[in-house]
Amino acid sequence: MHIRVINPNTTQAMTATIESAAKSVAAASTRITATQPSSGPVSIESHFDEAVSALGVVEEVLAGEREATDAYIIACFGDPGLYAARELTRAPVIGIAEAAFHIASLISTRFSVVTTLPRTAIIAEHLLDNYGFSHTCRRVRAADIPVLELEDNPDRALELIIEECLRAKREDNIGAIVLGCGGMADLTPQISEAVGLPIVEGVTAAIKLAEAVVGLGLGTSKFGDLAFPLPKPFTGRFADYSNLKPT
Amino acid sequence: MHIRVINPNTTQAMTATIESAAKSVAAASTRITATQPSSGPVSIESHFDEAVSALGVVEEVLAGEREATDAYIIACFGDPGLYAARELTRAPVIGIAEAAFHIASLISTRFSVVTTLPRTAIIAEHLLDNYGFSHTCRRVRAADIPVLELEDNPDRALELIIEECLRAKREDNIGAIVLGCGGMADLTPQISEAVGLPIVEGVTAAIKLAEAVVGLGLGTSKFGDLAFPLPKPFTGRFADYSNLKPT
Amino acid sequence: MHIRVINPNTTQAMTATIESAAKSVAAASTRITATQPSSGPVSIESHFDEAVSALGVVEEVLAGEREATDAYIIACFGDPGLYAARELTRAPVIGIAEAAFHIASLISTRFSVVTTLPRTAIIAEHLLDNYGFSHTCRRVRAADIPVLELEDNPDRALELIIEECLRAKREDNIGAIVLGCGGMADLTPQISEAVGLPIVEGVTAAIKLAEAVVGLGLGTSKFGDLAFPLPKPFTGRFADYSNLKPT
Amino acid sequence: MHIRVINPNTTQAMTATIESAAKSVAAASTRITATQPSSGPVSIESHFDEAVSALGVVEEVLAGEREATDAYIIACFGDPGLYAARELTRAPVIGIAEAAFHIASLISTRFSVVTTLPRTAIIAEHLLDNYGFSHTCRRVRAADIPVLELEDNPDRALELIIEECLRAKREDNIGAIVLGCGGMADLTPQISEAVGLPIVEGVTAAIKLAEAVVGLGLGTSKFGDLAFPLPKPFTGRFADYSNLKPT
Amino acid sequence: MHIRVINPNTTQAMTATIESAAKSVAAASTRITATQPSSGPVSIESHFDEAVSALGVVEEVLAGEREATDAYIIACFGDPGLYAARELTRAPVIGIAEAAFHIASLISTRFSVVTTLPRTAIIAEHLLDNYGFSHTCRRVRAADIPVLELEDNPDRALELIIEECLRAKREDNIGAIVLGCGGMADLTPQISEAVGLPIVEGVTAAIKLAEAVVGLGLGTSKFGDLAFPLPKPFTGRFADYSNLKPT
Amino acid sequence: MHIRVINPNTTQAMTATIESAAKSVAAASTRITATQPSSGPVSIESHFDEAVSALGVVEEVLAGEREATDAYIIACFGDPGLYAARELTRAPVIGIAEAAFHIASLISTRFSVVTTLPRTAIIAEHLLDNYGFSHTCRRVRAADIPVLELEDNPDRALELIIEECLRAKREDNIGAIVLGCGGMADLTPQISEAVGLPIVEGVTAAIKLAEAVVGLGLGTSKFGDLAFPLPKPFTGRFADYSNLKPT
Repeated sequence: MHIRVINPNTTQAMTATIESAAKSVAAASTRITATQPSSGPVSIESHFDEAVSALGVVEEVLAGEREATDAYIIACFGDPGLYAARELTRAPVIGIAEAAFHIASLISTRFSVVTTLPRTAIIAEHLLDNYGFSHTCRRVRAADIPVLELEDNPDRALELIIEECLRAKREDNIGAIVLGCGGMADLTPQISEAVGLPIVEGVTAAIKLAEAVVGLGLGTSKFGDLAFPLPKPFTGRFADYSNLKPT
Repeated sequence: MHIRVINPNTTQAMTATIESAAKSVAAASTRITATQPSSGPVSIESHFDEAVSALGVVEEVLAGEREATDAYIIACFGDPGLYAARELTRAPVIGIAEAAFHIASLISTRFSVVTTLPRTAIIAEHLLDNYGFSHTCRRVRAADIPVLELEDNPDRALELIIEECLRAKREDNIGAIVLGCGGMADLTPQISEAVGLPIVEGVTAAIKLAEAVVGLGLGTSKFGDLAFPLPKPFTGRFADYSNLKPT
Repeated sequence: MHIRVINPNTTQAMTATIESAAKSVAAASTRITATQPSSGPVSIESHFDEAVSALGVVEEVLAGEREATDAYIIACFGDPGLYAARELTRAPVIGIAEAAFHIASLISTRFSVVTTLPRTAIIAEHLLDNYGFSHTCRRVRAADIPVLELEDNPDRALELIIEECLRAKREDNIGAIVLGCGGMADLTPQISEAVGLPIVEGVTAAIKLAEAVVGLGLGTSKFGDLAFPLPKPFTGRFADYSNLKPT
Repeated sequence: MHIRVINPNTTQAMTATIESAAKSVAAASTRITATQPSSGPVSIESHFDEAVSALGVVEEVLAGEREATDAYIIACFGDPGLYAARELTRAPVIGIAEAAFHIASLISTRFSVVTTLPRTAIIAEHLLDNYGFSHTCRRVRAADIPVLELEDNPDRALELIIEECLRAKREDNIGAIVLGCGGMADLTPQISEAVGLPIVEGVTAAIKLAEAVVGLGLGTSKFGDLAFPLPKPFTGRFADYSNLKPT
Repeated sequence: MHIRVINPNTTQAMTATIESAAKSVAAASTRITATQPSSGPVSIESHFDEAVSALGVVEEVLAGEREATDAYIIACFGDPGLYAARELTRAPVIGIAEAAFHIASLISTRFSVVTTLPRTAIIAEHLLDNYGFSHTCRRVRAADIPVLELEDNPDRALELIIEECLRAKREDNIGAIVLGCGGMADLTPQISEAVGLPIVEGVTAAIKLAEAVVGLGLGTSKFGDLAFPLPKPFTGRFADYSNLKPT
Repeated sequence: MHIRVINPNTTQAMTATIESAAKSVAAASTRITATQPSSGPVSIESHFDEAVSALGVVEEVLAGEREATDAYIIACFGDPGLYAARELTRAPVIGIAEAAFHIASLISTRFSVVTTLPRTAIIAEHLLDNYGFSHTCRRVRAADIPVLELEDNPDRALELIIEECLRAKREDNIGAIVLGCGGMADLTPQISEAVGLPIVEGVTAAIKLAEAVVGLGLGTSKFGDLAFPLPKPFTGRFADYSNLKPT
């Protein structure tokens, strides 16, 4: 099985972090290709960054379709471009936010999310509503860390995340914590150790869900709103999307 | 007051339709600039088209910010790029779907939506949930018309829309109908006449809401999740977004 | 355009406050008539006051219908008599609570409400649920001020409101604040200045929404639950409502 | 125990119907006083009628408070004036719509409502949302009968109601039906017989719930939003409400 | 009228407490039989205890059906086995959690629950969602008392419950408190006295609701999902349930 | 990895069907033990059957804990005993209903459920609400087949299920169908072939989700409401549960 793990931002160091997390849980028979788009923001910390990164996700799904790809992971906690990506392929496409929510709800009755910046908490809240987990999630918390700080100052970032997780443990009456950023993928063991609650991380969760869906012989439904997009002309910097004929 | 009405697709004929609708209701003191992006799809009929068109919206907001612009309208019923656009400006940004929902709920207790394609009905449903109108809207109906048919075969399109509106009137126990496509903007009078219910059309609704917000001296909040995005490097075809410093 | 702004309580000083706020944002071509009913409570601070004031609203709409009136505003934050008033006219009828919620949701992704008394917070909560804004509003807060204190001891009232608004800003992760009382209409500039967040006030919001609806050629739907009430006998102190035949 | 059953409309024949239903289930030790206000509409078939009838309910609660009254029933399916009435007394106040919803949910997992007019279905829907029964109720159906037809042409009305109940039984996957009009109170046995499902009627339900609450030694909470209204001046036709000092 | 009050745990002292509470409010003509199953846990403090106790409830309903029983009460705050019990009888079956929620919502607009253990708060939350009271209930609070402490160390338990109730009164903006454990049934007067808010206790609430439903001539609907279970073979320790033919 | 697949009813033929489905998707390194309890109903078609079967599930989890078991599947579409089972083990416990809902929402934006009997549809509806999938699921449909008919008259059952699935495809605007009974596990290929939509079956879905959770090094949270139950005395037919000390 070949899974393409797409880091929607363009920071290679974060792709490496994500790749390492992905490989740490992948089945022996699963091959992981971790990539980032050639075009897009170095980190995703706003609605704007997210909208641009959706196109990077599209770019990488189209690249994946030119090879044999069995599943795609969108490794940013806002699941940017999720529905668009699903339209472009018969393979399953799993976002790391949804993956983490699904897994957390299988091992706990209530969980909280600990993310990076207060301003992006709303993105997680919109996803929880949209996917149906707003009752299962007690609270979205922000540790107030810029995303790239996870790469540049990992010790300080780790400390802040653990502090917020411990507050969640004390105050939220929960059974598990979801880490709300792809860049935290390599910190799970330390956080888990320090917090003493099950910690659900999205990249690893998504790998196992992708293997699950493929193992069931299922893929993105091509009936209804996720059918291939109608081929049509595109202009300007998106002219290369003209008359796409995915199959 | 200067309102930039952004047609998120690249079909100029549709921009003209939208412009004409916008001008038909704008105050005497309101100047309308109707534009479409240089890059993007000729119509928006899928999640994929919508994701790409969000970047066209961004392009047009950035262009608007280089002039004196008091408000922006996103004239596609999926409100593509709405939150991203809001981050880029202090001016209000109004999507035509939200505009139509707000106005319809001021004149009726329950309404239905009549849109073009069944596959895009889900986009309207997600917006209704996200904005809080899922109880106020009885039903999202599709007349099963490709978007550009509105330009190419307007008589047939009109007929199908009116039929679906009449079904909604008979079956849905509603007080108003929302037209679910920017390309229907010029058909409102005929539909209204034929159906005998208040018909709320999004482009016109958005113009009046934009005038309302500006008239209140308000604009997009720059506090919280809609603050200007943090400037940062972008690569590849989005390198021009690097270190944006909107003010 | 002629808008009748109805202060549902009988305190003329508050009508004057409301009128002044209304005029401060009305278009040049909009004529404002601010009135209060001859019958009713001097302030609205309970479910009981609200039920009585609904009849004052009715009285004023019936008076408005005898003149040429293009729109009505119900200038009390509980929107008393809103649906009844809508039944009596083809003109749009806008409550200041709904108006403020609509406008706040156009400029921010989440807002809080700051109202007067803890006991009336439930009225705002019921409206948020009913209109669909209970997810968009983070919290209804009360500054614990009797309504007429706004007239009698404005400096103290202003101070308490600003304090509560600042608490909301610090604690609620919001982009805007809605002022929850018609009597606060003249305080918006000072509150806005002191708090540093967009402040949405209902009277002004309702004026611009009324202008918007009228500008669209729309009015209250006469199809369905807002159709004119069936004419019938009324007795006792309401005998004058017998056989109303609005048109 | 003395229960005051308030018919919010002014039609004595309907009061008699309601009284008879109330007495048919009241405990031997319960004394029923059935009344209607001296002021108000002859039937309640619109938001407007309902707003006016709320004042009739208030009138009757104030009258009841001058005697020894242990509980109040509001015998119109819209529960007009419910919260206002509760503020005026320490006794419990039960609306027949809420009573029917509570009882129906104790004997079935899902129920439907059959009411009179399509235009008042929205009132029942608002109540279901407000009270939390919108998931328990499958559907609000209207038999399309003017309220007074129940008095004037009872056979025809009965036939239409039974037909609609049978449709609900066939189509709605329910265990019980709620009758949505106080005027149907005397028809329960025939409807029940003809439909073969448990039929829950609000007047009788409310009597037993009132007896239950009184039997528990409980009454309307005077803490929070249902505390007695603050005494204050009222003007005009409501001057008699000035400085109410309920105890 | 004969009501069988089932204590789902096997602690006789608690049955006695419950019986005493039940008798304190029952009508003169109501005969109370309080029982506990011969099989099950001594207290119910987990999902596991609750699942086992559902069978004890079943055992007691089957026993009741062999006598003349007019109604059943399930006297544990998780309402264990409620739907199963309803299937086995034409009589009404009332859980004390639902009973308390229904009564609390008739005397207050918002209430909070005070239960024993934090880990069982989730059971109350699930019930609130399932029954539709999650908006009416502000908060489920736990006083952190093991259930049998209510029998073994009643003074300490009472003190902790009162403290938590007073916190709810101060912080939750509520009109009433629901006691979240059948074992608290005898403490209501003291708690009520100390807290100064209406206190709703489930056993007493359920008795009066059972009398209400029976007094209406209603019982559990035998149409739809609560129809008698299809007779069929059972094996092992449940072989005695084979070919049940309730009528 | 060793997964214990628990058929909660006592029909061995159905266990064999479930085992075969489980093995058809299990990883090479996964060992499947399919069992059914020694005590319980031969099929689960009511709330009562479900309550009894929860104890069978408990019995089988306790048996599993005496061996090395890495995960448990509850192979009945009502997920009977799910929370109780989770309390008894550190291993993950997955219900087939939740499993199917999770997988269906990863490959489609909206799905419908096709189950056996109309009376058990309510069980699926309660689960959808409880887990947060009530918006993602369009409709729960019943093909009106007794559960054991799936064993006894498989051709007829298959035909009825396919007919209902085709109705769902035509009418529900969905991308996938969830099969609502463990006994349908072997019919997936034929249904899938005949219907032409992705068909999600719970037993297979649960196997892959169990492998996913175990592969992540996660298990049921022992913090909060799913912690091991407090050891305590049990009596009668459940005396063997006394002083359980799971670890």
